[in-house]
Amino acid sequence: MKIFHTIREVRDHIGEQKREGRTVGFVPTMGFLHKGHLSLVARAKQECDLVVMSIFVNPLQFGPNEDYERYPRDLDRDARLAREAGVDVLFAPPVEEMYPRPSYTYVEVEGLTQSLCGESRPGHFRGVATVVTKLFHIVQPQKAYFGQKDAQQVRVIEQMVEDLNMPVEIVACPIVREPDGLALSSRNVYLSPEERKQALSLYASIREVEKAFAEGERNAARLIQMSVDRIKAEPLAEIDYVRIVNRRTLTDVETIHEPALFALAVRFGKTRLIDNTLLQP
Amino acid sequence: MKIFHTIREVRDHIGEQKREGRTVGFVPTMGFLHKGHLSLVARAKQECDLVVMSIFVNPLQFGPNEDYERYPRDLDRDARLAREAGVDVLFAPPVEEMYPRPSYTYVEVEGLTQSLCGESRPGHFRGVATVVTKLFHIVQPQKAYFGQKDAQQVRVIEQMVEDLNMPVEIVACPIVREPDGLALSSRNVYLSPEERKQALSLYASIREVEKAFAEGERNAARLIQMSVDRIKAEPLAEIDYVRIVNRRTLTDVETIHEPALFALAVRFGKTRLIDNTLLQP
Repeated sequence: MKIFHTIREVRDHIGEQKREGRTVGFVPTMGFLHKGHLSLVARAKQECDLVVMSIFVNPLQFGPNEDYERYPRDLDRDARLAREAGVDVLFAPPVEEMYPRPSYTYVEVEGLTQSLCGESRPGHFRGVATVVTKLFHIVQPQKAYFGQKDAQQVRVIEQMVEDLNMPVEIVACPIVREPDGLALSSRNVYLSPEERKQALSLYASIREVEKAFAEGERNAARLIQMSVDRIKAEPLAEIDYVRIVNRRTLTDVETIHEPALFALAVRFGKTRLIDNTLLQP
Repeated sequence: MKIFHTIREVRDHIGEQKREGRTVGFVPTMGFLHKGHLSLVARAKQECDLVVMSIFVNPLQFGPNEDYERYPRDLDRDARLAREAGVDVLFAPPVEEMYPRPSYTYVEVEGLTQSLCGESRPGHFRGVATVVTKLFHIVQPQKAYFGQKDAQQVRVIEQMVEDLNMPVEIVACPIVREPDGLALSSRNVYLSPEERKQALSLYASIREVEKAFAEGERNAARLIQMSVDRIKAEPLAEIDYVRIVNRRTLTDVETIHEPALFALAVRFGKTRLIDNTLLQP
């Protein structure tokens, strides 16, 4: 596995590989890798000749009161995991390489970024869309892999790629969970043992909603209430949102006639967790 | 010369050419070609193997009260001129091909787009940055050619390319003028004979400013006043702006110590003309 820290080096290397006819699969990450990230690598390896992973904690997608500074970082560990998973090229630029000067330019995906996580994280998706655009221009992959855990992020990036005619295919991969159901996230390390235990209520509530949905419940308000009740049973849980939205537009639905996204965000202390499932009638 | 109207066709063709090792130069236009456009083609032909021109009157960069509907169009004439100039690929998509659905995504270049033309044309540069991004993703050129007549546009696109790490080099080409000095523009056809005559005041005032500058005048206010006086001598001229700005930031300068852009926009009836020159101490 080759490791590069500069845009010029990674571009030159990938350019050579592409000229030799290799297809490029790209897994953008913020590092502190877990099995969710590695499942994206596994999928990319199945579909592409060269797998490129980026590790970059992007300041632009963090709000002023968010966890940019304390976001977990461990490049040595990440490099080992990436190598073992079969990553061919690891691109780990310092902040000054990605933002050498104050940036004037932003990619805005309107409409999709106001609701759900956009409400409590203003500017977050602008930061995501902008850095993903930059990374796509640097790596120029044929395919890029994202985890469905960040469902709104996937939807925003899909729309951006479509609207801006980006020559890349977005592949969304299923959520990977701990054996007890907690969705994998680099932020899980923040949780105290007690928070970790209570955080299981997210997936527990998702399974209850899936069960009621399978049994015919189509009323969004009732499904949401079911989930809210389950999560509120945990004293440390503070709900940010529990919503059922149209899969494409991310606007609230009342009755589920089409595939809908059931999505939730819950805080435990300083840690904000998200999870979701697709409800397909 | 090949003419394509769909993204898929033009992509396939250019992709083939690139795989055979050819470099691609791109000249994006709104058509109704004049010698300014053709000078970009000539430069592209010197520097690239394959010259691609797009002709697309982009609705996104026109304000609600602007001239989108009446903007001059003549694809047959344009195709003939492009072929004669040596264009290899002409991409002329209909609006539905570029915007098949309502678009959620915009590229915003902040700071540079508020002043000068941005003041009287809100949203204009957002439309330009967005469509140029789309076209770059479709054509994927190594170099792209723009006329320095639209100096702010060139600056906005240069900044966008830098900020978003777009893998393309922007080449700005000199203003091309009529023998009497009027800068070439597709909009010149709107001018009545009398307006056309009075419009010569733009370049006349630019030459006066250049002369005073060459003789040592460095005070921006005095140079601007000189130009304003000259243009106001024409009864049909309505000045939108006459400004001297920092070449990179496009913010007003008081005293010219560094290369500065002297830029003006003047209306004659419904027709808005722009012109500029670089003042290099």
